[in-house]
Amino acid sequence: MTDGCDGEVTDDATDDAKADGGWTDAEEEIMLATYRALLEHGYAGLSISRIADELDKSKASIYYHYDSKDDLLGAFLAYAADRFQSSILTESGDDPREDLERVIEKLLPLRPDEEERQIQAVFLGLRGQAVTNATFREQFTELDEQLAATIREVVERGIDEGAFRDVDADRVAEHVLATINGAMYGRATSDRETAVAAVRVSLSSYLDAELRRS
Amino acid sequence: MTDGCDGEVTDDATDDAKADGGWTDAEEEIMLATYRALLEHGYAGLSISRIADELDKSKASIYYHYDSKDDLLGAFLAYAADRFQSSILTESGDDPREDLERVIEKLLPLRPDEEERQIQAVFLGLRGQAVTNATFREQFTELDEQLAATIREVVERGIDEGAFRDVDADRVAEHVLATINGAMYGRATSDRETAVAAVRVSLSSYLDAELRRS
Repeated sequence: MTDGCDGEVTDDATDDAKADGGWTDAEEEIMLATYRALLEHGYAGLSISRIADELDKSKASIYYHYDSKDDLLGAFLAYAADRFQSSILTESGDDPREDLERVIEKLLPLRPDEEERQIQAVFLGLRGQAVTNATFREQFTELDEQLAATIREVVERGIDEGAFRDVDADRVAEHVLATINGAMYGRATSDRETAVAAVRVSLSSYLDAELRRS
Repeated sequence: MTDGCDGEVTDDATDDAKADGGWTDAEEEIMLATYRALLEHGYAGLSISRIADELDKSKASIYYHYDSKDDLLGAFLAYAADRFQSSILTESGDDPREDLERVIEKLLPLRPDEEERQIQAVFLGLRGQAVTNATFREQFTELDEQLAATIREVVERGIDEGAFRDVDADRVAEHVLATINGAMYGRATSDRETAVAAVRVSLSSYLDAELRRS
């Protein structure tokens, strides 16, 4: 996620150039700097100053794009959702059942590395703010909508292709998303390491039973 | 949850009297005052002063029992877990499948009232702290352990009585707990109201399929 973040933005033309996901190069640089600052300082220690340090630019160059730290973090959540979505689309293959496992492993890795643990802790911190902060709440509503849609679409594809039986794809998607979110949340806030492994096995067997054509 | 919280503790003998769950009357009064203060001010606005106000006593009378706000909140989580556990035990009936639904409805009510919404938001706030705070992390580890054990025991009873087939009770319990926690967490941090209803239906049909004797 750090590729291309050391480049210099030299003129307004570059500033306005839209990258793939509808983000300008300048915005994307700020997003990557935000990501690094979050990993380093956590949500509580995040400031525009620290993002500017990561960016090697002035705070003004950030305020030019975002009015406040919350505004920037709202954009960051949207950016992370876009990135996740494209990585899922890129990697989807021929077998919808395998694609489902891939989405699950991405969202709830069995053995997360240090960076994955940290980014999940960061998201949990941001998500906690969504209880009272309307901007974050909106972003997490969209993020969950998007994740549920990703899972639902794989299930629907499986049904269309005749690989899965004709289940209520929406219901299955909400179940999978809630189970993943709950296990992720549990792992970040307790010391019950074996719980995630039990959930992963159980989720797979739920999907096998639910989707299997009889 | 407010019964008995207006009484006065008048002497040390009362102070040391243990209530049912191993809590002295004085401790229980402080817990109930903490509960009211949390509902009123949320986690962020909670202070020993405000709990003392609810208790109508001096701050010293709280510090006599608890060294710090975090110490007190750790005890509060243990108290809430005890209360939850006893309410489940009191209400368990003859049908393990119905008992499971009752536990699920208690943890993830389909139509939570205002107080249930507030207390879930409070728990979410406390749980967010568990990412970095060891005391809270320990308490949430215990809380989840206890909830998983409650669900597991109902499943085991159903197996012993021949009502359920011989499933891996631990795995089912972890799945149910993760799904409940994820849906609860989603409801408190996004505006996807219909998601919980979908999860409740799906969780019931998962349990029917998983536990049904063929």
